[in-house]
Amino acid sequence: MSEFFNVLAPIDAVNLMVNRLQSVTDFETIPTSNAMGRISYQNILSTENLPSVPRSTMDGIAVRSIDTFGATENLPAYLQIVDEVSMGIEPKIFLNQGEAVKTYTGSMLVNGADAVVMVENTQTVDQTITEVFKPVSAGENVIQVGEDIKIGETILESGSLIRPQDIGGLIALGITGIPVHKKPNVTIISTGDELIHPSKYPSPAQIRDINTYTISALTLEAGGNPIEVGIVEDSIELQLQSAKNTLKKSDLLVFSAGSSVSSRDITVKVINELGKPGVLAHGISFKPGKPTILAMIGDTPVIGLPGNPVSASVVYKMIGVPIINYLSGKKPNQWNPKIKAILTQDVPSQSGRQDTVQVNLSDKCGIPQASPSFGNSNLIFTMIRSDGYLTVPIDKGGLYAGEEIDVTLY
Amino acid sequence: MSEFFNVLAPIDAVNLMVNRLQSVTDFETIPTSNAMGRISYQNILSTENLPSVPRSTMDGIAVRSIDTFGATENLPAYLQIVDEVSMGIEPKIFLNQGEAVKTYTGSMLVNGADAVVMVENTQTVDQTITEVFKPVSAGENVIQVGEDIKIGETILESGSLIRPQDIGGLIALGITGIPVHKKPNVTIISTGDELIHPSKYPSPAQIRDINTYTISALTLEAGGNPIEVGIVEDSIELQLQSAKNTLKKSDLLVFSAGSSVSSRDITVKVINELGKPGVLAHGISFKPGKPTILAMIGDTPVIGLPGNPVSASVVYKMIGVPIINYLSGKKPNQWNPKIKAILTQDVPSQSGRQDTVQVNLSDKCGIPQASPSFGNSNLIFTMIRSDGYLTVPIDKGGLYAGEEIDVTLY
Repeated sequence: MSEFFNVLAPIDAVNLMVNRLQSVTDFETIPTSNAMGRISYQNILSTENLPSVPRSTMDGIAVRSIDTFGATENLPAYLQIVDEVSMGIEPKIFLNQGEAVKTYTGSMLVNGADAVVMVENTQTVDQTITEVFKPVSAGENVIQVGEDIKIGETILESGSLIRPQDIGGLIALGITGIPVHKKPNVTIISTGDELIHPSKYPSPAQIRDINTYTISALTLEAGGNPIEVGIVEDSIELQLQSAKNTLKKSDLLVFSAGSSVSSRDITVKVINELGKPGVLAHGISFKPGKPTILAMIGDTPVIGLPGNPVSASVVYKMIGVPIINYLSGKKPNQWNPKIKAILTQDVPSQSGRQDTVQVNLSDKCGIPQASPSFGNSNLIFTMIRSDGYLTVPIDKGGLYAGEEIDVTLY
Repeated sequence: MSEFFNVLAPIDAVNLMVNRLQSVTDFETIPTSNAMGRISYQNILSTENLPSVPRSTMDGIAVRSIDTFGATENLPAYLQIVDEVSMGIEPKIFLNQGEAVKTYTGSMLVNGADAVVMVENTQTVDQTITEVFKPVSAGENVIQVGEDIKIGETILESGSLIRPQDIGGLIALGITGIPVHKKPNVTIISTGDELIHPSKYPSPAQIRDINTYTISALTLEAGGNPIEVGIVEDSIELQLQSAKNTLKKSDLLVFSAGSSVSSRDITVKVINELGKPGVLAHGISFKPGKPTILAMIGDTPVIGLPGNPVSASVVYKMIGVPIINYLSGKKPNQWNPKIKAILTQDVPSQSGRQDTVQVNLSDKCGIPQASPSFGNSNLIFTMIRSDGYLTVPIDKGGLYAGEEIDVTLY
């Protein structure tokens, strides 16, 4: 059989590709209100101070702090309420000695005031006089000009994933449009003479094309723009033509390779015909997903995934998603949330190979228990019935029942 | 001041609302390929066996297992290769004694074969004869009919969040359309005379409307369909009219209340005017976000959020998101991924109040360190500069530097 395997460790496979990537996607300017989940294209600096005037952080009365000094429950300060701030209207008065103004959380401080007494520390005597039981120091319960953000400070760094609060911060400063990276175009070509369109009924030798749709969904999830070519039969000419037609508009080209060796050989030939340097590696020391192809055509990364749907998904998450992240200009996120769980059964593995094992979670007195889904790694419903997966590191021969392990949730 | 506070613990606030919700959203049928992130409306059962015929899990040769019994490196079994499976074409031959067929991962087993010998355990002698070095037992390296999923088995339970692999499983069975819950309509009304549209330049007493956009983004993130009404001024008549216009098409009605007590009083009056039972609670023992209003108008839940953007976001995540999950028919997810981190500074709190504190993460020899962002909880950029948040439980007076804590990532 003509297949060669130049087998790489998973981390080396990711680095082999990511280290060769040259360019990230260009920008487009979109309304800030639609920017959730997009990646900022440049550092965005504030052009305003927020707040632009001192504001109260409490409901209460705005005062000159000096007028409250020494106030106690027994010897309160008596202040004259001369006004109440109307929200949205700029107060015109100036606070003189012994005066105070009713004020609210977020409202502008009147001129002359330098602090706010919380409503809980006041008591109304009559319509104009209020007692204050506790002194405030200058600046107490007040946000100063620029305390939230100052002119020239960075709102959002280039490469940030835009979250709901970032939209809030941009809007707060009147930034209603923002340049973001275009979503990387990911072209997906499914090959294999055994494949038929999902809407058709397969003969015993046929299977429905699954990978187009799972890889497309994983691409969307990662922030890419999937372009589904569909099924292309195992012919060098047809696959080459499909790939050539889409290469220019692709930031990443993904082949879901057929299951036969001859089909995988065709994919290798097609990739090498497309341009230089072509295939860089064939094979990862990873279960499931050994027969993976990694290639570059000029600056464009190309992945040949195993035909098996479980292997294809797992390998795409491991190698395709970091490529999409790079291409879309996203800063790496080093904080990967997982849950700790106790392994219920031994998980055998081979040292020198990294294994991904699907797990089901259950609860035992508040401590999550992870039961590995054994059986064949080719079964797609193993993945569907799982809550997440664990990884057996490449240098370990297995994991033991009772160990605390990390589970990445789906 | 006329405000009354019937203060609830956060968990009681969530339960107060969720326990009164009556109905979930209706269904719509959409293409399976577009269903990622949607919630399945009913149990989906398989109408096919997968695989429909026995298939190989390896590249190798399909054999009658009996022909390999006793085979060793020194005394291999010699088998005659009579065919090679062509992917997508049903093999017509029947395997006789001493015969084998070249076969690939995922390909159909020929009639008469009951096992597959991995290619690694074979050696080609000449064009038609292959040596087998290791015996296989019946069923070895074969997926049996229905081993992945059987007719009548559940593919997806009602209320499941549809993930990429679920799309794969549905497509594998030819299910190209699926009924999902409609996204709950969440109407967002921003009130407060101090608010202006984000594209306008505020006078010192004005601020831009932020909450419409952050609450809208959080709604999208949670799987809801935000309907942005925009800013409505502090008038009972105008707010009542806006709310009435949108109530019928709303599954959840959200007021971002103004900052002044009089504005919050207006919101309370408007909600009580809208219908029965009206306001159920006013106030949560939670920082930031005490002045929250919880209400029901018939079957429709209503939340009055604090005007402060940070409080509004945090309270909406805590109470609004569980309501959206319920309304969209989503099964509760008990596995909440967090990261463990070491707290770098003491976090004071008050027993009887649950605090949410923003944190920044940094790395120290591979162990995440969480630095709490102190300063005013009203500052939106505190939230923007944070990687996630920690929660001080309601029954604790604080957390100590050096403690291992859970951080929920943004």
